[in-house]
Amino acid sequence: MTSILLKRLATKGADAGVSKVSLWINLHRGLQTVAGSRIEKDTFGPIEVPVDRYWGAQTQRSLQNFKIGGARERMPEPLIEAFGILKASAAKVNMTYGLDEKIGRAIISAATEVSEGKLHDHFPLVVWQTGSGTQTNMNANEVIANRATEILGGQLGKMLVHPNDHVNMSQSSNDTFPTAMHIAAVREIHRILLPNLETLYKALSQKSKEFENIVKIGRTHTQDATPLTLGQEFSGYATQVKYGLDRVNQALPRLYQLAQGGTAVGTGLNTRKGFDVKIADEVSQATGLPFKTAENKFEALAAHDAFVEASGALNTVAVSLNKIANDIRFLGSGPRSGLGELILPENEPGSSIMPGKVNPTQCEALTMVAGQVIGNHVAITFGGSNGHFELNVFKPLIASALLQSVRLLGDAALSFEENCVKGIQANRPRIAELVQKSLMLVTALNPKIGYDKAAAIAKKAHKEGLTLEDAAVKLNILTPEQFKEWVRPENMIGPS
Amino acid sequence: MTSILLKRLATKGADAGVSKVSLWINLHRGLQTVAGSRIEKDTFGPIEVPVDRYWGAQTQRSLQNFKIGGARERMPEPLIEAFGILKASAAKVNMTYGLDEKIGRAIISAATEVSEGKLHDHFPLVVWQTGSGTQTNMNANEVIANRATEILGGQLGKMLVHPNDHVNMSQSSNDTFPTAMHIAAVREIHRILLPNLETLYKALSQKSKEFENIVKIGRTHTQDATPLTLGQEFSGYATQVKYGLDRVNQALPRLYQLAQGGTAVGTGLNTRKGFDVKIADEVSQATGLPFKTAENKFEALAAHDAFVEASGALNTVAVSLNKIANDIRFLGSGPRSGLGELILPENEPGSSIMPGKVNPTQCEALTMVAGQVIGNHVAITFGGSNGHFELNVFKPLIASALLQSVRLLGDAALSFEENCVKGIQANRPRIAELVQKSLMLVTALNPKIGYDKAAAIAKKAHKEGLTLEDAAVKLNILTPEQFKEWVRPENMIGPS
Amino acid sequence: MTSILLKRLATKGADAGVSKVSLWINLHRGLQTVAGSRIEKDTFGPIEVPVDRYWGAQTQRSLQNFKIGGARERMPEPLIEAFGILKASAAKVNMTYGLDEKIGRAIISAATEVSEGKLHDHFPLVVWQTGSGTQTNMNANEVIANRATEILGGQLGKMLVHPNDHVNMSQSSNDTFPTAMHIAAVREIHRILLPNLETLYKALSQKSKEFENIVKIGRTHTQDATPLTLGQEFSGYATQVKYGLDRVNQALPRLYQLAQGGTAVGTGLNTRKGFDVKIADEVSQATGLPFKTAENKFEALAAHDAFVEASGALNTVAVSLNKIANDIRFLGSGPRSGLGELILPENEPGSSIMPGKVNPTQCEALTMVAGQVIGNHVAITFGGSNGHFELNVFKPLIASALLQSVRLLGDAALSFEENCVKGIQANRPRIAELVQKSLMLVTALNPKIGYDKAAAIAKKAHKEGLTLEDAAVKLNILTPEQFKEWVRPENMIGPS
Amino acid sequence: MTSILLKRLATKGADAGVSKVSLWINLHRGLQTVAGSRIEKDTFGPIEVPVDRYWGAQTQRSLQNFKIGGARERMPEPLIEAFGILKASAAKVNMTYGLDEKIGRAIISAATEVSEGKLHDHFPLVVWQTGSGTQTNMNANEVIANRATEILGGQLGKMLVHPNDHVNMSQSSNDTFPTAMHIAAVREIHRILLPNLETLYKALSQKSKEFENIVKIGRTHTQDATPLTLGQEFSGYATQVKYGLDRVNQALPRLYQLAQGGTAVGTGLNTRKGFDVKIADEVSQATGLPFKTAENKFEALAAHDAFVEASGALNTVAVSLNKIANDIRFLGSGPRSGLGELILPENEPGSSIMPGKVNPTQCEALTMVAGQVIGNHVAITFGGSNGHFELNVFKPLIASALLQSVRLLGDAALSFEENCVKGIQANRPRIAELVQKSLMLVTALNPKIGYDKAAAIAKKAHKEGLTLEDAAVKLNILTPEQFKEWVRPENMIGPS
Repeated sequence: MTSILLKRLATKGADAGVSKVSLWINLHRGLQTVAGSRIEKDTFGPIEVPVDRYWGAQTQRSLQNFKIGGARERMPEPLIEAFGILKASAAKVNMTYGLDEKIGRAIISAATEVSEGKLHDHFPLVVWQTGSGTQTNMNANEVIANRATEILGGQLGKMLVHPNDHVNMSQSSNDTFPTAMHIAAVREIHRILLPNLETLYKALSQKSKEFENIVKIGRTHTQDATPLTLGQEFSGYATQVKYGLDRVNQALPRLYQLAQGGTAVGTGLNTRKGFDVKIADEVSQATGLPFKTAENKFEALAAHDAFVEASGALNTVAVSLNKIANDIRFLGSGPRSGLGELILPENEPGSSIMPGKVNPTQCEALTMVAGQVIGNHVAITFGGSNGHFELNVFKPLIASALLQSVRLLGDAALSFEENCVKGIQANRPRIAELVQKSLMLVTALNPKIGYDKAAAIAKKAHKEGLTLEDAAVKLNILTPEQFKEWVRPENMIGPS
Repeated sequence: MTSILLKRLATKGADAGVSKVSLWINLHRGLQTVAGSRIEKDTFGPIEVPVDRYWGAQTQRSLQNFKIGGARERMPEPLIEAFGILKASAAKVNMTYGLDEKIGRAIISAATEVSEGKLHDHFPLVVWQTGSGTQTNMNANEVIANRATEILGGQLGKMLVHPNDHVNMSQSSNDTFPTAMHIAAVREIHRILLPNLETLYKALSQKSKEFENIVKIGRTHTQDATPLTLGQEFSGYATQVKYGLDRVNQALPRLYQLAQGGTAVGTGLNTRKGFDVKIADEVSQATGLPFKTAENKFEALAAHDAFVEASGALNTVAVSLNKIANDIRFLGSGPRSGLGELILPENEPGSSIMPGKVNPTQCEALTMVAGQVIGNHVAITFGGSNGHFELNVFKPLIASALLQSVRLLGDAALSFEENCVKGIQANRPRIAELVQKSLMLVTALNPKIGYDKAAAIAKKAHKEGLTLEDAAVKLNILTPEQFKEWVRPENMIGPS
Repeated sequence: MTSILLKRLATKGADAGVSKVSLWINLHRGLQTVAGSRIEKDTFGPIEVPVDRYWGAQTQRSLQNFKIGGARERMPEPLIEAFGILKASAAKVNMTYGLDEKIGRAIISAATEVSEGKLHDHFPLVVWQTGSGTQTNMNANEVIANRATEILGGQLGKMLVHPNDHVNMSQSSNDTFPTAMHIAAVREIHRILLPNLETLYKALSQKSKEFENIVKIGRTHTQDATPLTLGQEFSGYATQVKYGLDRVNQALPRLYQLAQGGTAVGTGLNTRKGFDVKIADEVSQATGLPFKTAENKFEALAAHDAFVEASGALNTVAVSLNKIANDIRFLGSGPRSGLGELILPENEPGSSIMPGKVNPTQCEALTMVAGQVIGNHVAITFGGSNGHFELNVFKPLIASALLQSVRLLGDAALSFEENCVKGIQANRPRIAELVQKSLMLVTALNPKIGYDKAAAIAKKAHKEGLTLEDAAVKLNILTPEQFKEWVRPENMIGPS
Repeated sequence: MTSILLKRLATKGADAGVSKVSLWINLHRGLQTVAGSRIEKDTFGPIEVPVDRYWGAQTQRSLQNFKIGGARERMPEPLIEAFGILKASAAKVNMTYGLDEKIGRAIISAATEVSEGKLHDHFPLVVWQTGSGTQTNMNANEVIANRATEILGGQLGKMLVHPNDHVNMSQSSNDTFPTAMHIAAVREIHRILLPNLETLYKALSQKSKEFENIVKIGRTHTQDATPLTLGQEFSGYATQVKYGLDRVNQALPRLYQLAQGGTAVGTGLNTRKGFDVKIADEVSQATGLPFKTAENKFEALAAHDAFVEASGALNTVAVSLNKIANDIRFLGSGPRSGLGELILPENEPGSSIMPGKVNPTQCEALTMVAGQVIGNHVAITFGGSNGHFELNVFKPLIASALLQSVRLLGDAALSFEENCVKGIQANRPRIAELVQKSLMLVTALNPKIGYDKAAAIAKKAHKEGLTLEDAAVKLNILTPEQFKEWVRPENMIGPS
């Protein structure tokens, strides 16, 4: 995008973007026009803005008043893109209500550039600003107005397209920001989270099938227990992820509801009847997703329960993935002095000293992501619980934390699948060794020789460090042949 | 219940409950039989148990080994009652698989007493025990076995009915405890939470209707904004609670799934094929609720994602109720120096000094409950994320925290409805005063006189502390008649 | 205590506790005096109270208006006892300011019974009431007034000692409740938490010393790493607990500050100058703990940052104990198919099937407690963050959650020490086996034969499943003698 | 920095940075050398790296294996700078133990560039990588090695300075990463958090003094209460921030402890005795901060309790600031229909419609920051609680979340001070109006006319909407003169 401005600067000279009016105001007030800036103004008066940026006065004021966190705290890109989608949709609807066609088309064109991520460098504001996100709404209005003005052949600051009257027509920050939040969250969930969880689910299911005949020792309380198959163990993981998909999907209906049309306090003052439905239709068409207008606009502005709910679903997914990743690193621990039942893919050098050391780094990234998602959930809960009257003013926090959680969970699920799960191998000899020496197998003898004799065998084996077979034979309870016939782990993996 | 034992003690003499075998063991080992105790035993040997309690050796050991938190930390009653339901259901199914009828019927009878809450004094164990809840499962087995033995005419400790072989037949703590968790949670949700949220929803909706014609000032960022009706404001609250009902209901499908039949590690070892389905049917019949056997028993033992999910729904409800209660106390603040738009019911003396001081105590109780539910959600999330291999061993924590959250939310919602919401009155004169003096009404003049003149009126009014009308007249922009005709808050509460 | 009332009932007849005035009011208003109740009144009028309870009208109203959670949600006993201490101290100070001596002494006597826990049955109110805890302050005032009246020979309800004028003299709920919170928290920390953490610290240090010569394999990323001693491993645990003691101690200075003397909003209206200092002195003397008057009473009423801070210390201790308990259960996992380096005490039967199965139940109780403490910390944080103006009205939540956390952590630390840590044994053969077969020992050869040859040895050993020695010999790099001389784990446990 | 490389590329030609060996490996393996890349290698083999970046093979692998979150999730800059400080310090100490001087000086030079933030573009790795932060340690080693090689006149990839043997000499990721965490956290706390909290404390204290004579109504339970001065109210806020400073300072002693010298598992294998103390001295000298070597290195690697503790202090500060900001926005609510006691600075247009609408945007930014800090605290708690054996592998999460919390709190405190607190004005007429009409003033009459008559006055005033004076006169209890003499709010703001 910058290239558009650079080209313009090159062809139009140094005063590009500084309108005569601005210069006049500037001179009138005794300000120096520094090289590289132009003057923009709002109801507070004129203010210098970098000459190569589309933003206007209100964006600039926010930049100066909220020096919190620096560049890495900027509003998430998916939210900016959602504003692009929304502003284009609003222009389309407003054209049916009388917005000038030329202006409308220029807005659509500029807004589309925003939605395609081409103007990210013109959105410098951080999350930690006004809690309604007004300044980011104005950032979008200003950038689109200036870019649309440019498209119409005007100069920056000339306001051929007005940020409020045209770009923000029939809108308020109080309904646009939550609308953009919902659009962004839903799109990211569909783009990153659901497909990647689906991929992970399939990989775990595939492993469950691959390992269906490998009988291994079970562990409860971290201690030896009765056997199961490695496939059964992985089927539990797969089920967790499958339910995770259900949980995320269940949160969608309320995320599909858009606040647009509520304007300042939910009443829809300064919109026309039907505006809310039309804009939801436009957004649906633009995104291919079933958005609809919110049933109650007062709730949609004053509360973000839909985000708290969605974050709760992510929290549950984080809990599931933490359990799975933690199991896998322990089952893959070793290579010599751990459990060693799984062989995890080697993706990078562990240590220059010890070949064979595989660090379960994908498990670690995933469990760290789980921790951040769980923490973000508390942040979202805090923000969601503290709205007042007609407006919740924790919107940027809630949007930012949720979008981070969605992205991290989605990316990490895929990374885990690609770089770990699909390459997991069963260490069959080790698995067989561990299940064979387990004292739990004595359970199989209960129906044959009774609990008391079985217990005597197990106790002797444990005390003297014998195999169960040796103990049984030494106690003259069984012959080796009997033992081999009756004690078979592969018969202990289901109901009779 | 105690009376059964006391009567028995009275009629059968001092040795009641002390079997000959126990006495023999006792004497043999040189122990004194203290007055008031009998000897019970398990594989660790004999142990003294209070003579007037049905529990056995394993319960007693847990009591001694887990002195954590004292009596107020006992396992929640709904969980104990769920064990009663489960054990009766298991006996019914086991009778179809060959459990002696007489024994089966005695178990059903004793277990029913447990499910009816008649034996709570015999469940002394605290939440902070083994993480599988094994000791509470054994507590249930022991109490039911002893009570069933008594029903069959035997003496306590005689074990006509065996805690493991009969009461726990085909079961493991690892599947009974999560099953009881699910039964208890679902029953409490249906008994307390859903109906009370429904009641609150109706009361808020009714208030929304009652207040539908009262136009009041809106507030965004806590600051004066455009008007809405008090009914619209309450419609937002009602919608929040309605969606809360949806959220809780959505969590039920996975709570209806029962782990029973998975036994020790999920394989169902030592059960018969079909046992899991039959027992879910019995529990459904006993409770009138649509329980079914868990689709994957490995997941059902190793993870409690269903509880983390349900707790997420409660967390969202807590967030909603916190917002509502917080608004209501601020709208009811005063009586002289606050917002004063609502008159809240007076339920108790606020202060002996100042009549008219109403403390919004129901709001306070509700917001405190919200805080505990939000905290419990983190506790449940922590416990849910830390399962290992075939078993999550944070079961009692998870069960206890969720049951507390359900109870507190349900009770507090009803208390709030009964003692606050349904008695709320609108302070109409105050509401009218505040909306009339709002500078925001100037918005209505935009289409008549244009933005600039409207702004001039508002600025003058703000600066000089005038009414909008006075400012408009002083500026010679409007006549008083014009102002009265055009500036009507009642026309600003919806789209045009 | 009940016996006092029962005795009185027996000797004074059925009308005991029902004053003539009450009866008159009763009849006058057409109420039936039911058997077992008496009438008490407050500014809202008369109300029936159970005849065998000391509480009065305001307590009774709270009971009826806050049916939230039932008996298990009652105010924690340590808080009730702190009220006893405070009310006795206040009476002493008030006597120096003119409170009648006879009345003062009766209050001290009754309040002392409260502080000794003798009147707990007369404190029925739950945590979920007014957020200032006013109703529990009034409960204390009413119980003490009635009991003191009785001590002075009066009848219940006669008010020889007045709950407000005498017991609550110069006080407000707004300063007594936070004062009682601080007294209770400090006493519980000193009574339960610090000594039990100290005991646990000593046990871990003692184990560290006991195990100082046992060289074992280290594990990073759950994978095999270079060796250390088991004593070194335990020294890390001991250090965590030692720092935990520091952390809790560091939170005390601000908990020692008492709000008493601030009365309703922090100004101290209706107290005398110096009252605040004197009462802090009395409480110090009564408890033997260095309480002092809060530096700023406005902060002391409006915020509970001192509790949030203290809870933060508990949160850190919970984190430490979770890490330790988790390690110990994994190091003790087995007996055959886990890591098996530690032998944990057997405290109760694990399973009737498998002798030798030790479930690390104390670790489980402790990690569950950690989860609840971490959750309570969020609840306290939520409550602490939401105070308004001159008063935080999340006091009962904050007090209750903190006291639970202190109690659970303290009890669980001791239970863990007594029933687990002090009985831990090292499984020396297993430890030796695991360290010997570790490929990490190859590190010791680096200075002798260079990294490349050492790596070749390790790679061959890993690939072919050989010992390092075998691999070294097969590669003709070392003789068996050289290997035995150079590769000694015991030389790898410190800097050179 | 990039300019160095660009210059080099310009002067040395397109093959700069691609060593002959790399090219050979490349060709040998049939890979295409794409324009703009060079080949680096590690024990996993060769890999293409962008030609204009100093990083090496392990960094590149991490980039490819951990596509989680994208550029905004990169390791925080303060951590990278801390690695610069640490690596320079290590080189200094290593030179005393025999590291070649020329190499040592080149490392110091390159590491200093890292510590000065000049090479940030060469640290592309995200937080969500291996949980030990090994890849970022290697990133530092590789960048410093290549840059030092360049300083010595070598070509990139030539390894005149070796990442492991020279830059990482006597170190392990397991001790460098936690050391860098501590250095970064302490520096940020000293650079941003403490000074900004100090500034805010001073501004609040100054306001407390400025407002010391303004008597206003107090509010408890959000309801009217007895009066206090606005200065007293602000003194509570100032005290909260003052204690916040104490809390953060108290966490420092354990943050000053450095893990360096523990190497892989805490034993210090492959370091020399005294290395740990010397390096802490060097870091202290470089930073001017009192770092020292950790008392117990096992704790320092396996746990991050010091971070959990520090985060607890930040959590408490967040709670304090949330309370203060929330109060200020409510006290400043209006301008016409709120409490309106404070006039907050206007920093940006609120709405184009309503002049005079001040949105308390700084309060909103600060309370959103509080929410994120509270959420991050849970993330840090989660990560801190889940370490295993000799290593906690949630290091990058813990470091990143804490550094974000420190930065956000520090920046937001300053923004709040500069753009809000220092410009707050008292709305004296409004404050006087509210306190004068308060019914609570009746309290002053208690000593003059007794409680009953005072109550009668207040009740009549409340019921009939009168002033207290009018009520008193109408009831013939007082003359207007008496009322004016006795009822003076300014006499109600302290003990008598």
